[in-house]
Amino acid sequence: MLSDIGVHVVEVGSVAASDGEREALRLISDAGLNAEICTYVRAVVQDIDSAADYGADSVHLVIPVSDLHIEKKMRKTRAQISEMAFSAVTYARERGLIVELSGEDASRADPAFVQEIFAGGIERGAERLCFCDTVGLLTPERVAEVIPHLCLAPLSIHCHDDLGMAMANTVAALRAGAQCAHVTVNGMGERAGNTPLEELVMALELLYHYPTGIKTREIYHLSSLVSRMTGVPLPTNKAIVGEMAFTHESGIHAHGVLREPSTYEPVPPERVGRKRRIMLGKHSGSAAVEAALAEMHYHPDESQLKEILKRIKALGDKGTRITDTDLIAVAEAVMAIECRPVLKMKQFTVVSGSNVIPTASVTMDVRGEEVTGASTGAGPVDAAMEALRRSVAAVADIRLEEYHVDAIHGGTDALVDVTVRLSKDGKIITSRGARTDIIMASVEAVIAGMNRLLREENEDRSQNTH
Amino acid sequence: MLSDIGVHVVEVGSVAASDGEREALRLISDAGLNAEICTYVRAVVQDIDSAADYGADSVHLVIPVSDLHIEKKMRKTRAQISEMAFSAVTYARERGLIVELSGEDASRADPAFVQEIFAGGIERGAERLCFCDTVGLLTPERVAEVIPHLCLAPLSIHCHDDLGMAMANTVAALRAGAQCAHVTVNGMGERAGNTPLEELVMALELLYHYPTGIKTREIYHLSSLVSRMTGVPLPTNKAIVGEMAFTHESGIHAHGVLREPSTYEPVPPERVGRKRRIMLGKHSGSAAVEAALAEMHYHPDESQLKEILKRIKALGDKGTRITDTDLIAVAEAVMAIECRPVLKMKQFTVVSGSNVIPTASVTMDVRGEEVTGASTGAGPVDAAMEALRRSVAAVADIRLEEYHVDAIHGGTDALVDVTVRLSKDGKIITSRGARTDIIMASVEAVIAGMNRLLREENEDRSQNTH
Repeated sequence: MLSDIGVHVVEVGSVAASDGEREALRLISDAGLNAEICTYVRAVVQDIDSAADYGADSVHLVIPVSDLHIEKKMRKTRAQISEMAFSAVTYARERGLIVELSGEDASRADPAFVQEIFAGGIERGAERLCFCDTVGLLTPERVAEVIPHLCLAPLSIHCHDDLGMAMANTVAALRAGAQCAHVTVNGMGERAGNTPLEELVMALELLYHYPTGIKTREIYHLSSLVSRMTGVPLPTNKAIVGEMAFTHESGIHAHGVLREPSTYEPVPPERVGRKRRIMLGKHSGSAAVEAALAEMHYHPDESQLKEILKRIKALGDKGTRITDTDLIAVAEAVMAIECRPVLKMKQFTVVSGSNVIPTASVTMDVRGEEVTGASTGAGPVDAAMEALRRSVAAVADIRLEEYHVDAIHGGTDALVDVTVRLSKDGKIITSRGARTDIIMASVEAVIAGMNRLLREENEDRSQNTH
Repeated sequence: MLSDIGVHVVEVGSVAASDGEREALRLISDAGLNAEICTYVRAVVQDIDSAADYGADSVHLVIPVSDLHIEKKMRKTRAQISEMAFSAVTYARERGLIVELSGEDASRADPAFVQEIFAGGIERGAERLCFCDTVGLLTPERVAEVIPHLCLAPLSIHCHDDLGMAMANTVAALRAGAQCAHVTVNGMGERAGNTPLEELVMALELLYHYPTGIKTREIYHLSSLVSRMTGVPLPTNKAIVGEMAFTHESGIHAHGVLREPSTYEPVPPERVGRKRRIMLGKHSGSAAVEAALAEMHYHPDESQLKEILKRIKALGDKGTRITDTDLIAVAEAVMAIECRPVLKMKQFTVVSGSNVIPTASVTMDVRGEEVTGASTGAGPVDAAMEALRRSVAAVADIRLEEYHVDAIHGGTDALVDVTVRLSKDGKIITSRGARTDIIMASVEAVIAGMNRLLREENEDRSQNTH
């Protein structure tokens, strides 16, 4: 995907790290991608041999250049380090590898020594250079001072975000003459991570009008994939790719966006593969609530709308995330729409354990008729969800499209927050349950959503008969 | 906490938002804090009245200044907007409020008009000004160009991070003459959020040697509190406060840090209330593994260490997070240390449901003796954990200090990842379980950890008898 999206060089891990890492390099090198396949190596023959043997096009050859790293970590002298760097470059070129010679901890190094190493490396055949701000201590001012003197060959900038300055420093370096930026998807990396691909690409395109050649519409897909595969969640407020990046809650913002999206959107969400979302909460205004209700075919009059907004804000004040079913419950109460539930739960039991297949049964009253569903499952929640589905299967085909539980912190008696997305004949609804009991929270969320979907069916029917 | 930590002005929400928000303003104003208590208001009499009535010291009085906002959102003219702004300033001063007059969407506005509004506001008594980059479209270059001309009174800079440039722009504005920065804890805020307090404070202190007066040792405590109270998790790689910000995995990094922390640490972790952590995974080197084992009193010889490292990397290649119990299991297998478990689970059953109090029983073989514990709980997991604790209570007092479940995405048959932290007589151990069944995953994690804690006790005993 990195290659397809337009990334020029892909650094495939570090060949010294593990067998899996080497195997990955082999598979990726053999895949016939457009991107140049690079790998991280130390100035060590064994690393360079692995890079060549496992099929890399190029190496990111890293050598410590600050006296701190040279003396404290390597326990060597500058002369020894130069010698190591130069023979590694020579050897890597002999093995047919493109060499990007990289100064580790360059931002704390003597610039004259960095220049010396770079010049010597180029003499021995290094095609590219890299300036590493290994612990994120660079400033844009320092970048402007140092970088222009180090562009002896195409220079890459490699920033870490320990003090939140990775983006600032990367942009400053590109403006100061660097030709390449090292980035990672979602800004992953050691400690606070590296410059994020998605932020840098969009900042260059939108703020500096520089066409990066990256297919920006694929960015969110790429981000989500990396998040899922690594298990590292996307930060809620992350620029471009975070859950909230194109979500508007504040009344003023939602109102503005409904009139003209660009008032509160720096990028049209589609341009990075996303969608706009208006969220309801304590900061909501009437414009957002009215729009959300209209989408679900509720049209309150002005005084009803005012009351609905008041109740939504009250829910928001309690810190509740407001889902479709919450909004509908409030609207129907205010608009005095009879909301006799189609489904009522009569009983629900689940058994689980080491020698028991997780098994659940649910009895429901569906329009006056008692129905029971039972099922086993991969776990007690799974069994309960399937029992629920079966209990209403005769009436409607309702599917659980998405099941989400917020991370649980603290203790086993913490509140568990479950959000579900249910569908019936293409109609989709979100609903929520919150209990200290994960199974009950899940059941509660699904029954609330099912009720809503079934009531809509009822209403449609009654309309048909008139 | 914001006041105690040294923040000068605290903006307490928006008085127009909700009753809860107004009530909060009242409570905070009455709390006798050192910080100036401010609140967000529109150029509307009702908002200003609420600010004064509920006890604010000052108002962040926001007026749209870009033609886009004036025309598309407000459907007004520049002249009408000036008129609104000026009478609002006059009225707020009459009500005894300090006024910070704020230009919304100033980064897309005609700088001459912003200057005109600011000058007119100062004439009518505004004490401070604010430049809002409402959609995060500013660049440091633009900041340097525009800001110096707008410092007609102490100027605040208010940035959004939609393109990852909030930190860059805030720092640039402070260097260009702005005297105050609007920040939020953890960078929360609409969409991609605002400039993060913790990053800005540490960047100013460390990179620009500017003493902010903020008690930096309290930063992590503040961040964690806000994260817990809002339910918005701290991003894993967030600078300063993220889980990984002071964690080292890569072999090269861990090796460097063990020799000299500053090689890979921009800030001593204690300075922001944190601790260093070496994590094991596929990038680990022998130095980190040896250090972690030594801490748990395992001293493998060189060839054993090599084999342990190989197996840890293999686990890491599978994407497994490596806990204490994983490392111990590997070390004991390699070192041929007999690892007969003290505890074996014989059976475990849990019942839960709508008319059933969640109830669990566990039978264990504890050194050949069969013991059973049973308990009810706030939910089935809680009941199971308590039953487990009771079943071993006669042997040892083991407490569940922390219980964590990663967010569950996708479906109800997704793998559930449970991490627990157990303690016994001050000894602490982390352990993990992963199953599609949340209860089984929890039980598995706790039993693995208990076994480890009890074995240590055994070993201590046998040492005593020799």
